[in-house]
Amino acid sequence: MISTTSLFAPVDNDLHLLTENLKRLVGARHPILAAAAEHLFDAGGKRIRPAIVLLVSRATMLEGEITPRHRRLAEITEMIHTASLVHDDVVDEAELRRNVPTVNSLFDNRIAVLAGDFLFAQSSWYLANLDNLEVVKLLSEVIRDFAEGEILQSINRFDTSITLEAYLEKSYYKTASLIANSAKAAGVLSDSSIEITENLYAYGRYLGLVFQILDDILDFTSSTEVLGKPVGSDLISGHITAPSLFAMEEKPYLKTLIEREFSEEGDIETALSLVKESQGIERTRELAAYHANLALKHLDCLKPSECSQSLTDLVDYALSRIF
Amino acid sequence: MISTTSLFAPVDNDLHLLTENLKRLVGARHPILAAAAEHLFDAGGKRIRPAIVLLVSRATMLEGEITPRHRRLAEITEMIHTASLVHDDVVDEAELRRNVPTVNSLFDNRIAVLAGDFLFAQSSWYLANLDNLEVVKLLSEVIRDFAEGEILQSINRFDTSITLEAYLEKSYYKTASLIANSAKAAGVLSDSSIEITENLYAYGRYLGLVFQILDDILDFTSSTEVLGKPVGSDLISGHITAPSLFAMEEKPYLKTLIEREFSEEGDIETALSLVKESQGIERTRELAAYHANLALKHLDCLKPSECSQSLTDLVDYALSRIF
Repeated sequence: MISTTSLFAPVDNDLHLLTENLKRLVGARHPILAAAAEHLFDAGGKRIRPAIVLLVSRATMLEGEITPRHRRLAEITEMIHTASLVHDDVVDEAELRRNVPTVNSLFDNRIAVLAGDFLFAQSSWYLANLDNLEVVKLLSEVIRDFAEGEILQSINRFDTSITLEAYLEKSYYKTASLIANSAKAAGVLSDSSIEITENLYAYGRYLGLVFQILDDILDFTSSTEVLGKPVGSDLISGHITAPSLFAMEEKPYLKTLIEREFSEEGDIETALSLVKESQGIERTRELAAYHANLALKHLDCLKPSECSQSLTDLVDYALSRIF
Repeated sequence: MISTTSLFAPVDNDLHLLTENLKRLVGARHPILAAAAEHLFDAGGKRIRPAIVLLVSRATMLEGEITPRHRRLAEITEMIHTASLVHDDVVDEAELRRNVPTVNSLFDNRIAVLAGDFLFAQSSWYLANLDNLEVVKLLSEVIRDFAEGEILQSINRFDTSITLEAYLEKSYYKTASLIANSAKAAGVLSDSSIEITENLYAYGRYLGLVFQILDDILDFTSSTEVLGKPVGSDLISGHITAPSLFAMEEKPYLKTLIEREFSEEGDIETALSLVKESQGIERTRELAAYHANLALKHLDCLKPSECSQSLTDLVDYALSRIF
């Protein structure tokens, strides 16, 4: 099992600096947010998104040296990600994330909405001050995609007619867009060629989908203790992900259960068993492997280095996650 | 009494187009937001912010002709304003705004957070696509100031040591920043000189403060029917505005009531009477008149036109509001 610690070794110092900076940026001026900031940026997050930005930055810069703007981009990426999590938890009325109480449950909705808005606002402001219109456009696209993804997810709850394409589209909006656009933006800040920045975008897009697809598998195969929320909670909330999509093809009764929104006793347990008995999980793994392969292909454009190796290893890591 | 309809006559058609565009931009693709969009953009808003952008645009363009980018800026301004209202109402748990149920009360917090995020996200995206880095910076400053203002307001609840400067700072963040920066941005899009854009900023800043100061007076002098919320609700929620600030200087007992957060029966009624008996309202009117004068001075830079006349009249309108 690969750990993110060894994966991110080439940017370990950068990530340490980033965490300290984020706490300072968010917490220092506002005591009311200090507790939320400590909580958010210490909650055992893996810092995957800023790590990718930093790895791409070092992989695309001569001698692997990065600029303060690359660092700022990594911070912006983590701020946008965190803001979206905080508001997601309000929208989903979630009480735990990674086994840690959410901001809305620990404080209240008021502080959670404020903290999320503040993070979005700070990131917009830092973004504008990177003084690069192309980067501003790439990241504002991400913020828009997040909102779009949340809305699509809300619209499609308990809708069994959702297609695999619609599932992948929603996954792009909610997860892959940030990774794709921020990887590309790091290349833009390094003055990389269009060929390279397009490859970085595609790498981020496919890697992001692998992460999301694996999360959706783990929602069924992991345990409540590890997930920090009930097994199958996506399905229970009406979010139909790849495993359920594939399972419905084999088990039409699953469709019935979803369409009646698990309104009868035992419906949830039956639904979870149907998914596990089907080829749904296996076929979802194949879907992830397919996207992982596509991600790897788009790394060929980078010169071999410790950082580009980490970006390669990250794909295997994403695919091999078992919790 | 001047009405906004006659005030905004020179941009009446523009405003009509803007309302239709906003409903289309927000509601069309997302049925889940369509009802919220109809509700938000039909709720009797006066469209003061986009009207100022449109008036400044026409006042600064040769022949008074405006470009699609000026129109887009006006739409962005109204979207940012609306997004902030929607999230404010979640934060304040407000049930009515202008006597119309808020999104959070009509739908729920979930839809309100989503709708606000979507509006902020859309506005960031349109902003980036105006392709003008200076305008992006001006408006991202506004989004940051909103979050800052909400936080300052939360921190300072029931804090009787707040100064007049701190009150004006919070009012700038919450109200004047949007008007100041969007007026300046309209000038930037017209390629106006720095002298003119700085005057437009100052005009917007002082005019915005007049609007906020008058709102704070009306919170005490208007009626529950007109306000659509209880008289004195700012003070009741612990928000100390200019009338209470001045009143505390004369009536030290008001301080005591605020500091104990109106915990004893009759405290609220006593507090409201103390404000009304004091010179607080009158001194606040003088504060508004002082800022109105400053706003007017900064309009001298504009050539006389129907639109610059409207911008002048708007200051008198702001000052003369009695409901």
